Amino acid sequence: MSVPKIAVTMGDPAGVGPEICLRILENPTILEICQPLIFGDSTVLAKCAALLTTNCSYPSIESCDWPEASTQIQGPAIVNFQAADIERLRPGVISADTGKAAYTYLTAAIDAALAGHVAAITTAPINKEALHAAGINFPGHTEILADRTKTDRYCMLQFSDEVTASFVTTHVGYREVPDLLSIERIVEVIQISYEAVRRIRGGDPKIVVCGLNPHAGENGLFGDGEEERFIKPAIEQARKQGIVIDGPLPPDTAFLPNRRIETGCFVCMYHDQGHIPLKALAFDTAVNVTLGLPIVRTSVDHGTANDIAWKGIANPSSLVQAITLATRLAAK
Amino acid sequence: MSVPKIAVTMGDPAGVGPEICLRILENPTILEICQPLIFGDSTVLAKCAALLTTNCSYPSIESCDWPEASTQIQGPAIVNFQAADIERLRPGVISADTGKAAYTYLTAAIDAALAGHVAAITTAPINKEALHAAGINFPGHTEILADRTKTDRYCMLQFSDEVTASFVTTHVGYREVPDLLSIERIVEVIQISYEAVRRIRGGDPKIVVCGLNPHAGENGLFGDGEEERFIKPAIEQARKQGIVIDGPLPPDTAFLPNRRIETGCFVCMYHDQGHIPLKALAFDTAVNVTLGLPIVRTSVDHGTANDIAWKGIANPSSLVQAITLATRLAAK
Repeated sequence: MSVPKIAVTMGDPAGVGPEICLRILENPTILEICQPLIFGDSTVLAKCAALLTTNCSYPSIESCDWPEASTQIQGPAIVNFQAADIERLRPGVISADTGKAAYTYLTAAIDAALAGHVAAITTAPINKEALHAAGINFPGHTEILADRTKTDRYCMLQFSDEVTASFVTTHVGYREVPDLLSIERIVEVIQISYEAVRRIRGGDPKIVVCGLNPHAGENGLFGDGEEERFIKPAIEQARKQGIVIDGPLPPDTAFLPNRRIETGCFVCMYHDQGHIPLKALAFDTAVNVTLGLPIVRTSVDHGTANDIAWKGIANPSSLVQAITLATRLAAK
Repeated sequence: MSVPKIAVTMGDPAGVGPEICLRILENPTILEICQPLIFGDSTVLAKCAALLTTNCSYPSIESCDWPEASTQIQGPAIVNFQAADIERLRPGVISADTGKAAYTYLTAAIDAALAGHVAAITTAPINKEALHAAGINFPGHTEILADRTKTDRYCMLQFSDEVTASFVTTHVGYREVPDLLSIERIVEVIQISYEAVRRIRGGDPKIVVCGLNPHAGENGLFGDGEEERFIKPAIEQARKQGIVIDGPLPPDTAFLPNRRIETGCFVCMYHDQGHIPLKALAFDTAVNVTLGLPIVRTSVDHGTANDIAWKGIANPSSLVQAITLATRLAAK
């Protein structure tokens, strides 16, 4: 039985990406469910493997021979872009070089998924400062994915067994959030989240929508009526489509243990409303999924962690979870 | 050896206050560390006890005889205000009557603490709507306490073994928070929190100060520079007083398990930044303390829970924790 090909981008070469990629290539669970193809640099992986005294004897496909040369290979492999200059690379140090290389792996992986040459992509972390130093002015992965796949209706979902959350707004300043709320956007996020969680978990997931203000505004006592003006009408619209929704709930009691058990997804109004409980409860295992794209894309839930890069102590469990989820999403 | 007298207000008679007060009067741990005096109504407690088939045979002191009549009583007792109309009282139903009664118990308890007749006060929940129906226009306990004790430098602290947080702003709308931040206010909350946690836990507690924006602004990438303008200068000022502080930290990674272990108190910029992890991690045991008052005051971390009031299923553990902490704070 053949398993799906998953493009795993190596991320920023100076971060923890190379070592966590090496870890998953020898992970028996991963190799059982998919064929991982590391979109990265063979020399970087080999040098990192030597430092960590771990195996790196995997078939390497030159990027110019991709995807044709991949048809003969059954197990894990490296797609080699020769994008990073191994002589100038300093583990843990931000540079334009590594930012540009990370961007090269990512865009190639997106194109491979769009062309159907891989079933899904899973991304190791990139470094925003390195990206900007290379003159690539996207705030992060999600915006690159949206741009390259020409998608404008998308949202971030963070998945874990303990708590799963999706986001009406994400990487914007605290003050900007209220002006970005709209009935249309909230309905969109409820719908996309519901569909995704149904695909991941099966059944008919229950959705919780959080309020914006403390105590969800407490009937107009706090805030500018954002719950009444945007969140409640959005919930009403989404309910008409048959989605079971609780809300708007007070953000603090939304994440109580009993409620976490019965909730398929928490729709959050802003980044920290969902990321605080996610990181507090499921730091090592949460997976980031970009919903609404024409391709399946999952990601680790951590950064390049430059302070511990290339030391052999980075935990690969978030990447393992991300690839596992990508495989499940790609199968449906 | 004599134990301190703690005034425990009964809270809104229609809520879970009466039954959790009855529970603590028979709690051996509580009776060992303090003398609990319920500031409430004897008839309400007796009726509730009859429904729950629990004991209510405690000495009752008429409020007009307080505090003189209390000198002869060693164990738990009720200070009876006859403030609630037992005939009109409907468990779980909001009314002006019960709001007014709750206010009577509270103000008497504050006065008793100010006069030194009790060592501390611990409050059962009041209902804001009932209070407003009675024409008492305070947003909650804290503001009544500040007003009656003529205090303007105070802050809320939520204490639990898992996580302890204090708040620069609390019951205000999401949108109002950034304009309420100032260097002075943040320094004040750091100082008050540090002193309180040192008294509660001993030693030299480490303080974490959270940023306002996602990723604590990520060096100016998100937000209006609130971290640079207010939070960083406040941390610098407080450090000069010898307080060990980490921050401003990204709010989502601030509450990771490892950091929770080493942190004495998290100084939060807004209500849900601290209440989300508190309720997710320590719902049943968190205690609310108002810092900066001339009296010791702790409170349960839940509302009147009208939906389950007078059914005998309310969990008294938050009240037990609150009285325990009040006793510890009063002793120092």
